[in-house]
Amino acid sequence: MPHPPLVDPAVVSRCAIYPGYVEAKLGFRNHWYPTVFSHELAEGGYVSHPILGDRLLLARVDGRAYAVRDRCVHRGVPFSRKPECYRKGTLTCWYHGFTFDLESGMLVDIITDPGSRQIGRLRIARFPVIEAKGIVFVFLGDAEPPPLAHDVPPMFLDDDLAVRGVRQSVGSNWRVGCENGFDSTHVFIHKDSVLVEGNDLALPLGFRPTGPRAFEVVEAADGPRGVYDLLGEHSEPIFEGKVLGETVLHGHLGQTRVAYNISIWLPGVLRVHPWPDPSLTQFEWYVPIDADRHFYVQTLGRRVANAEEEARFAAEFDSKWRTLALAGFNDDDIWAREAQQEFYRHDEAWLEERLFEPDNNIIQWRKLASRYNRGIQQRAHLF
Amino acid sequence: MPHPPLVDPAVVSRCAIYPGYVEAKLGFRNHWYPTVFSHELAEGGYVSHPILGDRLLLARVDGRAYAVRDRCVHRGVPFSRKPECYRKGTLTCWYHGFTFDLESGMLVDIITDPGSRQIGRLRIARFPVIEAKGIVFVFLGDAEPPPLAHDVPPMFLDDDLAVRGVRQSVGSNWRVGCENGFDSTHVFIHKDSVLVEGNDLALPLGFRPTGPRAFEVVEAADGPRGVYDLLGEHSEPIFEGKVLGETVLHGHLGQTRVAYNISIWLPGVLRVHPWPDPSLTQFEWYVPIDADRHFYVQTLGRRVANAEEEARFAAEFDSKWRTLALAGFNDDDIWAREAQQEFYRHDEAWLEERLFEPDNNIIQWRKLASRYNRGIQQRAHLF
Amino acid sequence: MPHPPLVDPAVVSRCAIYPGYVEAKLGFRNHWYPTVFSHELAEGGYVSHPILGDRLLLARVDGRAYAVRDRCVHRGVPFSRKPECYRKGTLTCWYHGFTFDLESGMLVDIITDPGSRQIGRLRIARFPVIEAKGIVFVFLGDAEPPPLAHDVPPMFLDDDLAVRGVRQSVGSNWRVGCENGFDSTHVFIHKDSVLVEGNDLALPLGFRPTGPRAFEVVEAADGPRGVYDLLGEHSEPIFEGKVLGETVLHGHLGQTRVAYNISIWLPGVLRVHPWPDPSLTQFEWYVPIDADRHFYVQTLGRRVANAEEEARFAAEFDSKWRTLALAGFNDDDIWAREAQQEFYRHDEAWLEERLFEPDNNIIQWRKLASRYNRGIQQRAHLF
Repeated sequence: MPHPPLVDPAVVSRCAIYPGYVEAKLGFRNHWYPTVFSHELAEGGYVSHPILGDRLLLARVDGRAYAVRDRCVHRGVPFSRKPECYRKGTLTCWYHGFTFDLESGMLVDIITDPGSRQIGRLRIARFPVIEAKGIVFVFLGDAEPPPLAHDVPPMFLDDDLAVRGVRQSVGSNWRVGCENGFDSTHVFIHKDSVLVEGNDLALPLGFRPTGPRAFEVVEAADGPRGVYDLLGEHSEPIFEGKVLGETVLHGHLGQTRVAYNISIWLPGVLRVHPWPDPSLTQFEWYVPIDADRHFYVQTLGRRVANAEEEARFAAEFDSKWRTLALAGFNDDDIWAREAQQEFYRHDEAWLEERLFEPDNNIIQWRKLASRYNRGIQQRAHLF
Repeated sequence: MPHPPLVDPAVVSRCAIYPGYVEAKLGFRNHWYPTVFSHELAEGGYVSHPILGDRLLLARVDGRAYAVRDRCVHRGVPFSRKPECYRKGTLTCWYHGFTFDLESGMLVDIITDPGSRQIGRLRIARFPVIEAKGIVFVFLGDAEPPPLAHDVPPMFLDDDLAVRGVRQSVGSNWRVGCENGFDSTHVFIHKDSVLVEGNDLALPLGFRPTGPRAFEVVEAADGPRGVYDLLGEHSEPIFEGKVLGETVLHGHLGQTRVAYNISIWLPGVLRVHPWPDPSLTQFEWYVPIDADRHFYVQTLGRRVANAEEEARFAAEFDSKWRTLALAGFNDDDIWAREAQQEFYRHDEAWLEERLFEPDNNIIQWRKLASRYNRGIQQRAHLF
Repeated sequence: MPHPPLVDPAVVSRCAIYPGYVEAKLGFRNHWYPTVFSHELAEGGYVSHPILGDRLLLARVDGRAYAVRDRCVHRGVPFSRKPECYRKGTLTCWYHGFTFDLESGMLVDIITDPGSRQIGRLRIARFPVIEAKGIVFVFLGDAEPPPLAHDVPPMFLDDDLAVRGVRQSVGSNWRVGCENGFDSTHVFIHKDSVLVEGNDLALPLGFRPTGPRAFEVVEAADGPRGVYDLLGEHSEPIFEGKVLGETVLHGHLGQTRVAYNISIWLPGVLRVHPWPDPSLTQFEWYVPIDADRHFYVQTLGRRVANAEEEARFAAEFDSKWRTLALAGFNDDDIWAREAQQEFYRHDEAWLEERLFEPDNNIIQWRKLASRYNRGIQQRAHLF
């Protein structure tokens, strides 16, 4: 059966101020994305990893991580069903012995027919890899990769920043993930969180804008591109929730001010600063798996002066923040994203939604992403 | 991906004597449908209810039932994931605090941004509700609703009729439900029923038509529209089943004559009179859920003179008819409908079926429904 | 919703040397296929059997096997939900008593309306049946059937050949089954098989072609059409597996030479001679169920001189070959086919695959099948 278009072209053209964003159901090509944490990919091991409707085979040889498409060019089978390696740095397909160089992707030998003329002519797709902050980043695309620093938020790669994190699969499109994270007023869903109470945080119920412009777009070519939410500065926080004039709810008036600097960056990564504590910053990615799922990669960073401080942070992350902030608090967000997917999986949702003033920052993000992405993933290769 | 048409237009146009019926895979709009029984919707409670490819949120406030679309206009999430109410008669979305009036559907406040200009401008869809005979009826559509009496069979709303019932989801299109119920000769599947034996019912195996016309169409504008099956009067019942001249089966020649007056009414409700006993009448609805499922709402009615008789009927319903007639007997029908769905889910089925003489009444029903429905549900909104 | 084409016409036309093969996602019509083993269809019994996207009801009356479409013409229900028979040689639908003659498919009576004019006018599809070698073969099509001998490999119907077998459902398209079986170099996946070790078989890792032509096409009209793989004669077997010049693996240099004569035949049946032992020949069919599944019917044949030898073979089959060869060895093949399906279920796979020299025989098979099939199954009737 012919492949239908991933996204209804009529809807894309009616979303004229951010057509590329509406079209990018499977994400943007030619960007750096986090895949697994470095400790998940052992020496000599393999991990099959779905991403942007495609599937990678990650491998580690002599400490270095490699990424190739998890599909033999010959008959299309996934290497990962039974990865075979007979010489270091090569990958042999279990089916007919096609053997590829991990570095170049080149077919360097065929065990079942060593005289074949295909040797040296066929390649599997291979993707550039950089490991940073304990994460295996892969450049998903064919273009020349820019520096990793162009695809992560400012501060993330700073030398003195220690990073820890977790990841999981979430049942919504990646854009729903981005928008829920960057959305200022979704704070409403967190009104009963234990995290807020326990840490004496100031957390309003919403925001009443006081001026017209509450965002700042960063679009210079020599760094990451993103949008800062300035709603906190251009609005009054709402601590008394009212319905028809009557106060019905209260926000949490704690002493600790957090999350006053929130920004989102291509290709889909949020920075919340500081959060969930004045000493921490959260960086979280929404990495497309396919049209209906994304990997939610949550990390916290803290500036450390030495190895001892880093170890202390690691221990604190494991004993406290992993459970309280990343799971306890953000589970509400996961639930909210999955609740939206039923609506947003229909392309018409982009036309039928009815946004309000605080969503203006989200509009800016859509426009930026539509304008500055380096390509749109057009088709699922493996699913 | 663009929405394909729900029904193949080429098939619809080839079914020229009842195109609107073939097109109505998701049912007819602008009709009254039963949803839940009144006792299922408690004071202050909510029920999410799928219907016609859409989804309602039912609520009860101060005894009165309300129905709105179970989807916030802002970002499309279902209210029912976590219904919130801060002032009586309003519904607040758990996501951003959008607050709607249940009566009008109007957005009357936004907790997270009380100054938004969207307040007073946006609405959620709300639907008229009437409770009658212990059932919450909802008018699914945008037009001005006619009286409920135009969408239920004659007798159902009579003051002295007490009604009890059950409902369940069945895995077939709603039209397969209607046609199985109205089909005179499907009596063949009931030939071994315990109900028939235990109640000394006269139940033939089929009917040999003796005249050309065996139906009566009711199409006046000021009441319900439907078709009476008169096959019983214009045919001989068959109590000796023969194959190639040899008697191979016997119908049940009990003394109690029942089900001699069967009729079907828009928007898809059957009346079997009397049944399953000379003192009772069965009314049953086949309410579209989506293309492949319907709610089967079965009720029995008995004329009662006072509260004591009604209580006696209620007790008898619970102890006897619920199990013996609604479950025991009609389970055969459920099974038959689900067995047809594999065929009728393909639009071509309407062209490939090969009907016979006793199906003439079904043809009349299709024509009536195609002609007098008040609109065709064109698209699933939520699934 | 309109039926989309089963196969993208743009892909079919770009596969210009075997378009009919690419189009035949549901298999070829007007061929003989094995269905169940004779012992699976008891006297007076029924088996519902999916095949080519359609579904058969198999029945046995007075020892003879019959095959009809498992769908009543009236309302499309499967007879098999509750097969009823009131006179020998007829089949009555449980729904309205439509009664068909198994031999002709003709509607010979209707129990619920014996006067209907449809009697003698409607038919269900019936299919020719031949039982041979303990298998119920059915001719799936409308044309005049050729002799069974035209649709099975040479030797299979020989009088002195005793046959035993097993069958199971496998999760891949039938063509993936054919090609995996006929593929010479897929021997690579069997390198660790217990069968090979235990029976002292010579099993190389692959083949280095020594001449240009390594196949023989059989295309005469008066017999089966197929392709012989002559790669064994036109290549050197590879017992030393090398990667970049270094020997990394060894094939099994047993004394027993087997499988030197492999051929594949329309409509999709492989002969491996001798196998898994010099006294045996394997015949295996890949019978389309639907686009994503096939029945894998594996049989072994041995020439026997008398009933005693046949009984000895039957005992040996049960105690040894069923487990060791059909399950133990061929489970690797099943696994390999299912691993390919993710790729080949997309029509583009036929364009994106990158074959190598030893696959030339597979190309010949595709061309033969595209040219000489007797029709292409265009649509799934029941799924």
